[in-house]
Amino acid sequence: MVNKPVSYADYLKLDVLLNAQVPESAAAGREAHDEMLFIIVHQVYELWFKQILFEIDRIEAIFAGDWVDDRDVAAAANGLARIVEVLRLGVRQIDLLETMTPLDFLDFRDLLYPASGFQSAQFRAVEVRLGLRREDRYAFEDQPFEKRLTEREQTRILDQERARSVFDLVETWLSRVPFVETAGWRFREAYRSAVADAVRGDIAYAERSAALSDSQRAAQVKALEQELDRFDALFSGTPADLAEAAPGWRMGRGAVLAALFINLYRDEPALQVPFRFLSLLMDVDETLTTWRFRHALMVERMIGRKLGTGGSSGHSYLHKTVERHRIFSDLFALATFLMPSRARPPLPDEVRRAMSLAYAPAGSGASESA
Amino acid sequence: MVNKPVSYADYLKLDVLLNAQVPESAAAGREAHDEMLFIIVHQVYELWFKQILFEIDRIEAIFAGDWVDDRDVAAAANGLARIVEVLRLGVRQIDLLETMTPLDFLDFRDLLYPASGFQSAQFRAVEVRLGLRREDRYAFEDQPFEKRLTEREQTRILDQERARSVFDLVETWLSRVPFVETAGWRFREAYRSAVADAVRGDIAYAERSAALSDSQRAAQVKALEQELDRFDALFSGTPADLAEAAPGWRMGRGAVLAALFINLYRDEPALQVPFRFLSLLMDVDETLTTWRFRHALMVERMIGRKLGTGGSSGHSYLHKTVERHRIFSDLFALATFLMPSRARPPLPDEVRRAMSLAYAPAGSGASESA
Amino acid sequence: MVNKPVSYADYLKLDVLLNAQVPESAAAGREAHDEMLFIIVHQVYELWFKQILFEIDRIEAIFAGDWVDDRDVAAAANGLARIVEVLRLGVRQIDLLETMTPLDFLDFRDLLYPASGFQSAQFRAVEVRLGLRREDRYAFEDQPFEKRLTEREQTRILDQERARSVFDLVETWLSRVPFVETAGWRFREAYRSAVADAVRGDIAYAERSAALSDSQRAAQVKALEQELDRFDALFSGTPADLAEAAPGWRMGRGAVLAALFINLYRDEPALQVPFRFLSLLMDVDETLTTWRFRHALMVERMIGRKLGTGGSSGHSYLHKTVERHRIFSDLFALATFLMPSRARPPLPDEVRRAMSLAYAPAGSGASESA
Amino acid sequence: MVNKPVSYADYLKLDVLLNAQVPESAAAGREAHDEMLFIIVHQVYELWFKQILFEIDRIEAIFAGDWVDDRDVAAAANGLARIVEVLRLGVRQIDLLETMTPLDFLDFRDLLYPASGFQSAQFRAVEVRLGLRREDRYAFEDQPFEKRLTEREQTRILDQERARSVFDLVETWLSRVPFVETAGWRFREAYRSAVADAVRGDIAYAERSAALSDSQRAAQVKALEQELDRFDALFSGTPADLAEAAPGWRMGRGAVLAALFINLYRDEPALQVPFRFLSLLMDVDETLTTWRFRHALMVERMIGRKLGTGGSSGHSYLHKTVERHRIFSDLFALATFLMPSRARPPLPDEVRRAMSLAYAPAGSGASESA
Repeated sequence: MVNKPVSYADYLKLDVLLNAQVPESAAAGREAHDEMLFIIVHQVYELWFKQILFEIDRIEAIFAGDWVDDRDVAAAANGLARIVEVLRLGVRQIDLLETMTPLDFLDFRDLLYPASGFQSAQFRAVEVRLGLRREDRYAFEDQPFEKRLTEREQTRILDQERARSVFDLVETWLSRVPFVETAGWRFREAYRSAVADAVRGDIAYAERSAALSDSQRAAQVKALEQELDRFDALFSGTPADLAEAAPGWRMGRGAVLAALFINLYRDEPALQVPFRFLSLLMDVDETLTTWRFRHALMVERMIGRKLGTGGSSGHSYLHKTVERHRIFSDLFALATFLMPSRARPPLPDEVRRAMSLAYAPAGSGASESA
Repeated sequence: MVNKPVSYADYLKLDVLLNAQVPESAAAGREAHDEMLFIIVHQVYELWFKQILFEIDRIEAIFAGDWVDDRDVAAAANGLARIVEVLRLGVRQIDLLETMTPLDFLDFRDLLYPASGFQSAQFRAVEVRLGLRREDRYAFEDQPFEKRLTEREQTRILDQERARSVFDLVETWLSRVPFVETAGWRFREAYRSAVADAVRGDIAYAERSAALSDSQRAAQVKALEQELDRFDALFSGTPADLAEAAPGWRMGRGAVLAALFINLYRDEPALQVPFRFLSLLMDVDETLTTWRFRHALMVERMIGRKLGTGGSSGHSYLHKTVERHRIFSDLFALATFLMPSRARPPLPDEVRRAMSLAYAPAGSGASESA
Repeated sequence: MVNKPVSYADYLKLDVLLNAQVPESAAAGREAHDEMLFIIVHQVYELWFKQILFEIDRIEAIFAGDWVDDRDVAAAANGLARIVEVLRLGVRQIDLLETMTPLDFLDFRDLLYPASGFQSAQFRAVEVRLGLRREDRYAFEDQPFEKRLTEREQTRILDQERARSVFDLVETWLSRVPFVETAGWRFREAYRSAVADAVRGDIAYAERSAALSDSQRAAQVKALEQELDRFDALFSGTPADLAEAAPGWRMGRGAVLAALFINLYRDEPALQVPFRFLSLLMDVDETLTTWRFRHALMVERMIGRKLGTGGSSGHSYLHKTVERHRIFSDLFALATFLMPSRARPPLPDEVRRAMSLAYAPAGSGASESA
Repeated sequence: MVNKPVSYADYLKLDVLLNAQVPESAAAGREAHDEMLFIIVHQVYELWFKQILFEIDRIEAIFAGDWVDDRDVAAAANGLARIVEVLRLGVRQIDLLETMTPLDFLDFRDLLYPASGFQSAQFRAVEVRLGLRREDRYAFEDQPFEKRLTEREQTRILDQERARSVFDLVETWLSRVPFVETAGWRFREAYRSAVADAVRGDIAYAERSAALSDSQRAAQVKALEQELDRFDALFSGTPADLAEAAPGWRMGRGAVLAALFINLYRDEPALQVPFRFLSLLMDVDETLTTWRFRHALMVERMIGRKLGTGGSSGHSYLHKTVERHRIFSDLFALATFLMPSRARPPLPDEVRRAMSLAYAPAGSGASESA
């Protein structure tokens, strides 16, 4: 444990860090005060992206093997929680950037041409490694998104696209959850039957509801019947059925059923941390999407309908990415297939016991039904 | 100054306030823990809406007359700043509501039927009084939005629609800004000529830029020429020209020119507070829109593609309102018509002096050009 | 599932809720615009306090019995997470209240006399039920804190003081954690020996560190020896030893050792959720303390050194409560007794296995040492 | 306007920026995952400090001369608003750092010795240049604070201490506000007489208040009489009187009276922006103090009562700086000397007119009394 003394400035490389802000406006002889803020805010964003990628490294390593240790799922969840905090700061940072007014920005904007956020290789890596697919991207100027990067960066992002993303790894992990189908019990069948009972009950309820006009009633009954169809597609339909019932669905049936299982029985010890992990994936998606949204609004405010510095058609492109560039929307759509806890099928003792802790304390619920 | 002693609980009406949470799930004999959170969060939203409407009252009063006292514009700006803080809390409150999971919500959701956020008369009033127009609303089920309200509330909201909104009042106030056109100077002409010089300079620059491919160059030049056309439509086109050049534009030419003037010369004493006021209108729009966006994401997460409790098609309706229900998008689009400060026309001495403070200190810039 | 239709306004009791704002300044004939904000912000605080107390109800119920079901610890942790979100909103709400200036407040402040935040029975209940002890309170005017409440409220708060607080319940729960001492292994002994090795290593390191002056070295060695003494007090000292080694320490030795155990082996499946629970208790303490701090700063800003409306000496009292009214500071102080993970004693197989999940997958770490 | 094309990565110096994270734990052969977060978070803090110092540069330049242009006060206020946003992000960043647990930190903490936040020259510069005085600092280990810096940094910070701080410049600017004393009117006399009337009214009110016990009444009357004494010290006492009446007071009488004047008549056009500027100075102080507070809590949580990496006695030192290292506490204490707006002396027409805008619109309040 003998290492040489460390100074704060050396440790943080302050000599390079604090000399890395070189405003173009000063170089051009017309200093624009707000360019410093613009540079620093974007540098901080890049540092945050590096942190996010570093967490993704660990999450990928945890889920990469054939076996995921229960101990590590908590670490993966903590990594996601950290990514969420980083993204929240990223959203808040827009408030800071907006202390720059459009007029202030115009004082140096022409000097940045053609630099553009499009050229952030790290941000592209965040998208790709989380699981954004090429085919889901909003096309921009009919040019593949990576063309704005350097050749070296292009090679790298194409490699990353070929590798398994967090989305892929999670899907595989879900499809292996052991409790969903055991020797004596199949969640799929049990839930299918519970759902059918419940939705038919809702239909009956709607049919006799005095609060509804006839047309409202008809609309609701129709909607509930469609719900039943959607469930059928989920439980036993072909991929085409599922695609029709739930447009944009991406995850395989096995993974979806496991995710539903985890949501329904999240209180069982074996599922508590997996449930938290899935919730945090949604938080990541939600915060990243909110960041896109706020970013698009800020660009709209800053440049109106002008061209972006990179020649992009500016904020309208950004607004379009908000809805398109979702990654874990399947998890949001899960709620479509959830039934109230009172309608969920009871767990057989053996399944329940398997999901308990090993120490099996006397009096624990491990060997009882709820 | 003799008033009777006041107790904390009486002052805040805690007896009624803290007894106004009556969960339906308890009444139905199946208590759902999270319904309390659901009720309280929505009650707090309604209290915030009341506060927003109260601030709108004062802002409307300030701008209602033929004359707006300079002293009061600062008060109006402070009112907007307060509304922004309220809306920010509203956005943050969604993080709290999301501590309820979809499954928790399902435990009592069926009991709320057909209650729905659609029935918030106060939220409708916020929209209408800020300036959301009926024709700009995303139509829902081909039914006028107010039909979900009670008759009394419908009468009231229709009255509010007929009255002048904050948008209307601000437009009128802008169109009366005295400095935009004086005996000897017209901002419109001065700016038109400055813009023409600047955009033509940009075109020349693009034409000789080595960093662009031929097709990029052609695209940019074309875009810049369209920019010039847009400016022409702004300066002298017919309303139809302007509508074509700037789709969705709502404010009249006089108000737009005044808003541009305020943005360009915001440092002059007479314009500092008006500039802050206009910026805060954008903050209101941005925060309200962000609230809609986060709300739509939350609903998507909570109910997937199910019907809303009010029978709405849920989150897809909400997502559509995000882009449609903007109110001050004209102010965001202003940036389209801004030129860098180095290109703005110099102010004549008399205009500059008129916008200074009366005490005219020796050595002040009031009587000099910049 | 037949219940009568519910309307939004009825469900939220909007008729009473939105009529519960009665400004004294209007009654006194000198309307002060900002009193509405003052009332609504405080009403929202009371609604948040109600929510916090409601969550405390459930947490207490979970920990009240002789046996805490593993399934319920996750629910308790979620309850704490929700309390943290509520408190964060409470902190942010101060930004909103500060849109009122001191002068605005003076316009109605005299009319509130002698109402005061001191009279919030719910806030007192939050403090007491979380575990703030009477003897730890900063004395105000030599009067017991509850004297500002009504008689009925006084009776209630005294009852709550006699009942077991969240602090008490958690302490009991910790002191029963089964893995800390088994037939063949005692964490206390194993950790004691690991600590002794590690600290002696640090002493040796300090003694030969070239980066230290002689006096720095002496100071560090002395500090490390004191650390060793503190550990001795923790492991085997009398309560008086511990009180001297760790002033203000409140939790019993058994609970402290269990909390250390949970921190050190937090990745084991049986400890993941307990660890999250303990971390959230610290978050509650930290956010509540931050709220006190921001509140004290706001009062200082609002009234300077004047008397509070309740006759209190204002902000100086509040500042004193910030440090004194901590509840879970023992958990913060835990870090004093933590060793790096590389120094922690390895777990015997049997302990590790007991802390695994029951389904014991092949290849799981459950039967191996790390 | 011909500059060479700029790429995103070159502009932001991403090659140096993203290679400036060199964990000691990797170098020592025992990689600690969370060290990356630790490094990046601290690097971002240093980038924020650079931004703050950059804004201080401009604010100092604005106030440095003999004459402060009214146009520039708005720019200075915007600079403060930006500093506040930066500090708010700094506070929020602590939430991110706290995703690292104490145990994670221990995995690399020993390798950082003796690096410490004490060695942040930029943070010291922020303190000194805003106006923190050496004599107000909490002494640490009887060593001047700058001794932890390098020699070059020490020279620099001593120079900065000798220069005029933001506090000094603001005090000078305040003491020159022209309206406080004119040929025909002295705010000091007018306010003194208004205050005397008002406080004597309060005394009379307290004396006849039925809501008070005898001892409460006596205490209040005494407090009010002390208030009157404090006012006397403010209006005409010797510096020693003022020091006794308002312990810790730092600003000269002229500046204090001007600050009171600005607070009381903040709606007058000439005072709107100065008022906003003073409010933002308080926001800076409040947010910086909150950052210190949250930082101290985090350190307490992270290391308990251990020594800091720089050998400091850790969080207790930090807690002590929270209250001591305030800079603009005089502005907070101003509220002590504010009277309600209904008690403020009316402005003579000539003063009011001088504070209006030059364009003197017909019907404006400029030539009328309120």
